[in-house]
Amino acid sequence: MNHASDSHCATGLHLDPDIRKDVGRRLLSVRGHIEGIIKMLENESIYCVDVLKQVKAVQGALDKVGDLVLISHLKNHVTTAAQRGDSEKIVAELTEVLKYR
Amino acid sequence: MNHASDSHCATGLHLDPDIRKDVGRRLLSVRGHIEGIIKMLENESIYCVDVLKQVKAVQGALDKVGDLVLISHLKNHVTTAAQRGDSEKIVAELTEVLKYR
Amino acid sequence: MNHASDSHCATGLHLDPDIRKDVGRRLLSVRGHIEGIIKMLENESIYCVDVLKQVKAVQGALDKVGDLVLISHLKNHVTTAAQRGDSEKIVAELTEVLKYR
Amino acid sequence: MNHASDSHCATGLHLDPDIRKDVGRRLLSVRGHIEGIIKMLENESIYCVDVLKQVKAVQGALDKVGDLVLISHLKNHVTTAAQRGDSEKIVAELTEVLKYR
Repeated sequence: MNHASDSHCATGLHLDPDIRKDVGRRLLSVRGHIEGIIKMLENESIYCVDVLKQVKAVQGALDKVGDLVLISHLKNHVTTAAQRGDSEKIVAELTEVLKYR
Repeated sequence: MNHASDSHCATGLHLDPDIRKDVGRRLLSVRGHIEGIIKMLENESIYCVDVLKQVKAVQGALDKVGDLVLISHLKNHVTTAAQRGDSEKIVAELTEVLKYR
Repeated sequence: MNHASDSHCATGLHLDPDIRKDVGRRLLSVRGHIEGIIKMLENESIYCVDVLKQVKAVQGALDKVGDLVLISHLKNHVTTAAQRGDSEKIVAELTEVLKYR
Repeated sequence: MNHASDSHCATGLHLDPDIRKDVGRRLLSVRGHIEGIIKMLENESIYCVDVLKQVKAVQGALDKVGDLVLISHLKNHVTTAAQRGDSEKIVAELTEVLKYR
């Protein structure tokens, strides 16, 4: 996972510090949730639907993380792209991220 | 997260052992990926889009986990529900899980 | 769109009549909604976000249609698959449909 | 569906003409597809999974429409928001649209 160091150098754009910390805290919670599911799975009599519910809950938490980062990006970097002159790059990147959905 | 123990007693249905182990391994990998993102976020100059890409990758891995559990459940428990006589419960649970989407 | 006639012959399984009518009515409404968006788009000064909101509304209506058909299928055909002896086919089809997501 | 006329007046921002025409054509095709499903549903022996597959296909086509409009909006209106001085409104609208997902 060295993508970060590569592209921040190219862009000079950084994730807003408050969002960065909030997202970090949320991902610690997601990690704890994942560990809870891993522990559930050690139980031989675990029921499929209980696993599904936990997986869905983690997906919801990750969706929220993605939205927070995306909105912060829109606010801090996308709206100012024409001023900086990198609109094309900014739009191409977002188009790429949309494809990942 | 004690839901599991409650409902497996009620159902007597258990996640297929091979799927259970596969899902456990996949979630260990997801946990590692989440930890990688948490580490990325310690870098003050991290770029939003790099975080977004990693979050999307984790979401893809979790979707796969959810699908594996769902398909295993369909195969092992849903198709046999009428034979066991618990179709109503089985469908109600799945309806509930679909709402979480 | 001749898939239907092919596969219902093979399966002998039919969509529940009440759900069939309900889904038909919902799709008439979806069609009307789509026509509304097509009309919006004749207006040269239409704003992107207004189109996006309408598209999202239609997607929500279609998600509901998909869930109704899926739940009806689970209830009427998937839970009885082992009794009929076609579990493998039923699960393979659903796995295929899940991939379309 | 009068939202359009309201908000384009407020914004003065219009969907790119080429995208507008492309999206119009795509929605005509979506309408035809919906009509095909409505016709399928008149057949009493229609099979659930055949309906599901068609619904998924329409959803894919609508996702594409949504992405086209969103990318056009990003390119033409979001990247220039700071120059116009309406960043706050633009971001609030997109946040709202993201919630619809």
